Amino acid sequence: MNPAIAATAGSLIRALHARRKATTIDLGLGEPTLMPNVAYFERATAWVAEHGCRYSPNIGFEDLRTAIARHYDYPGLNDPGNVCITTGSQEAVYLAIKTLLDPAQDEVLLVEPAFPVYAKIAQVEGLTVRRVVLEPKDGCALDADKILEALGPCTRMLILCSPCNPTGRVISKTGAKKIADALLAHSGPPVYLMHDEIYRELIYTDDVGEFGKIYPYTIAINSLSKSNSLTGLRLGWLFAPLDVMPQIVKMHGWSSSCASTFAQRIALDIFTSNDLSATRPWYAKQRELAMAAARDSGLEYIEPEGAFYLCVRVGDPDTLGFVESLIDERDVIAIPADNFASSMTGWLRTSFVAKIDDVREGYRRIAEHATSRALLHR
Amino acid sequence: MNPAIAATAGSLIRALHARRKATTIDLGLGEPTLMPNVAYFERATAWVAEHGCRYSPNIGFEDLRTAIARHYDYPGLNDPGNVCITTGSQEAVYLAIKTLLDPAQDEVLLVEPAFPVYAKIAQVEGLTVRRVVLEPKDGCALDADKILEALGPCTRMLILCSPCNPTGRVISKTGAKKIADALLAHSGPPVYLMHDEIYRELIYTDDVGEFGKIYPYTIAINSLSKSNSLTGLRLGWLFAPLDVMPQIVKMHGWSSSCASTFAQRIALDIFTSNDLSATRPWYAKQRELAMAAARDSGLEYIEPEGAFYLCVRVGDPDTLGFVESLIDERDVIAIPADNFASSMTGWLRTSFVAKIDDVREGYRRIAEHATSRALLHR
Repeated sequence: MNPAIAATAGSLIRALHARRKATTIDLGLGEPTLMPNVAYFERATAWVAEHGCRYSPNIGFEDLRTAIARHYDYPGLNDPGNVCITTGSQEAVYLAIKTLLDPAQDEVLLVEPAFPVYAKIAQVEGLTVRRVVLEPKDGCALDADKILEALGPCTRMLILCSPCNPTGRVISKTGAKKIADALLAHSGPPVYLMHDEIYRELIYTDDVGEFGKIYPYTIAINSLSKSNSLTGLRLGWLFAPLDVMPQIVKMHGWSSSCASTFAQRIALDIFTSNDLSATRPWYAKQRELAMAAARDSGLEYIEPEGAFYLCVRVGDPDTLGFVESLIDERDVIAIPADNFASSMTGWLRTSFVAKIDDVREGYRRIAEHATSRALLHR
Repeated sequence: MNPAIAATAGSLIRALHARRKATTIDLGLGEPTLMPNVAYFERATAWVAEHGCRYSPNIGFEDLRTAIARHYDYPGLNDPGNVCITTGSQEAVYLAIKTLLDPAQDEVLLVEPAFPVYAKIAQVEGLTVRRVVLEPKDGCALDADKILEALGPCTRMLILCSPCNPTGRVISKTGAKKIADALLAHSGPPVYLMHDEIYRELIYTDDVGEFGKIYPYTIAINSLSKSNSLTGLRLGWLFAPLDVMPQIVKMHGWSSSCASTFAQRIALDIFTSNDLSATRPWYAKQRELAMAAARDSGLEYIEPEGAFYLCVRVGDPDTLGFVESLIDERDVIAIPADNFASSMTGWLRTSFVAKIDDVREGYRRIAEHATSRALLHR
């Protein structure tokens, strides 16, 4: 048995999700409840009837990679050869961390709160992890100065999710520029900036930093999961500089051969139709309603500038205990936010993808539970 | 950059395939040319219209895992918890090697000729590789005694592909029993037997050893790619003992999250319809015709008992040089079989999935090329 795998914890989010019952108010798992556009499946099926469903090149079909490269038009990353199609953004994250870093010498810097899987992959691959932990008292703002202070001499990758899972905070144009400039001025080999931009279609502010636009060593990662309600399609991609792409594609060949041909046809159709942001108005409205519901329940929250999460404060120092009893006693699933950063003790990550009445009722029960737990433990 | 990835060669098969032109007779890549049954795609699309396309559990949907466990009914491996659904068999191979072995102490034993990816994954993961090399003079028979002699004290996984890619040889019932008995009698921790059985639906003999039926530490790996002409769907699975499955599923969560929901619906439909072997008669006929064509061209070959490959002898000690010039001068793609084992110098792997007239013409050109190269280098 591989001891690094045995020593690394599995997904708490998935474990909590597995406790869902038919009656549960589920504010846990991070996936859309909106229905995808089935016309894409029908057209891809018609394509299969004509062409079959054969392997794609390891790197992905060229027409799709061309469409993606053109759509984002990141300077220096806008060639089809800068794009590798992956089995969801999860595989893209795995490939980037696994391929671009040398466990013997390289460190990865995580900006927390962060999706726990970055740290877990780094741990499994034997990499040293540095952390910069943002504080809820600062609204977990993606503070460029604080992030740059945390860089070490061996840091070869900085991982930043913006809009952030779980806080929904977005890096500003100025903040992104400050980070890009500092990394460019950094001596030694390049520091890759993995920008997990899986929530980029769901942004509710105009001041949005995009590393792909300003930093040539950006590894931009995305998928159709959140924007097009296609979590189960497993279609993602990563942008990377041309010189490292052959190594990434090689590793991709070993870990999964290539992405699904069927899913790639759907992706090509979506990019050709420029249909990536149709759901944004719905999420913008949900966000307003969710914040209002949190206020109505008296819950303190971090105002999200993107994504579909609202971190709410329950105060309980035993965050996991709170969540477990919330499931057992109130039939509500939420995620302990200290799963994403040590600074988030007493906070929960909630998704506002459920029907708004359920979100409201969920917050009401969370607030009630917080009050009763506080009384109990006083 | 990860030095283990940089030091490991990419896929020669894919590189040769990339040189395919419209006129090329392609006996290279190992994938069916038959069309898949599009009704499965239509029904899965109707399911998506009703249910959306959301994440599956990391391990895969329970109804599918139940159907697969029942279909094969491997004693001790017949619980839905013994099955993990993967992104094609490629991910299954990766997960098994990566998760079940400890690079600090475990060795993997390959039975060669073998698909090169097993050795490459082991190399990337820092594992020591032992090899037992079967000889074309013995028809590359999967000789149990020879395989068992090669086991070392640190061997913790034996990887065997039967029917074999590239030779098409199949392990006999007696041979499999001999190996299983010896491994069971082996002292120390269990030796996992990875049985890559991706060609199991394409078998042309009655004497077929199946490790899942007789050895409890079998890791059986398979997919819909070859049996149902669905290489581009990326839907595979692995069987593993219950005690190691949580670790495999954890690693699967990090490398790709979960298999495609759409592909899993197709797989469930195929298993429920018991539609895994409809193409076998076609391949059986192709095999007869391909062997006859090789004989007509005067090419020596290894008689395949399964799969859709025919290894033919061209004699040239520079096998790759032969293949490169075969592409350039005769517009035929075949794979140098020394890519699969050092014993296969002067042999080519050909696929007999193309139209039989193309296979015939391909063999004619290969034989002609062998004659002219022999004259040239005399």
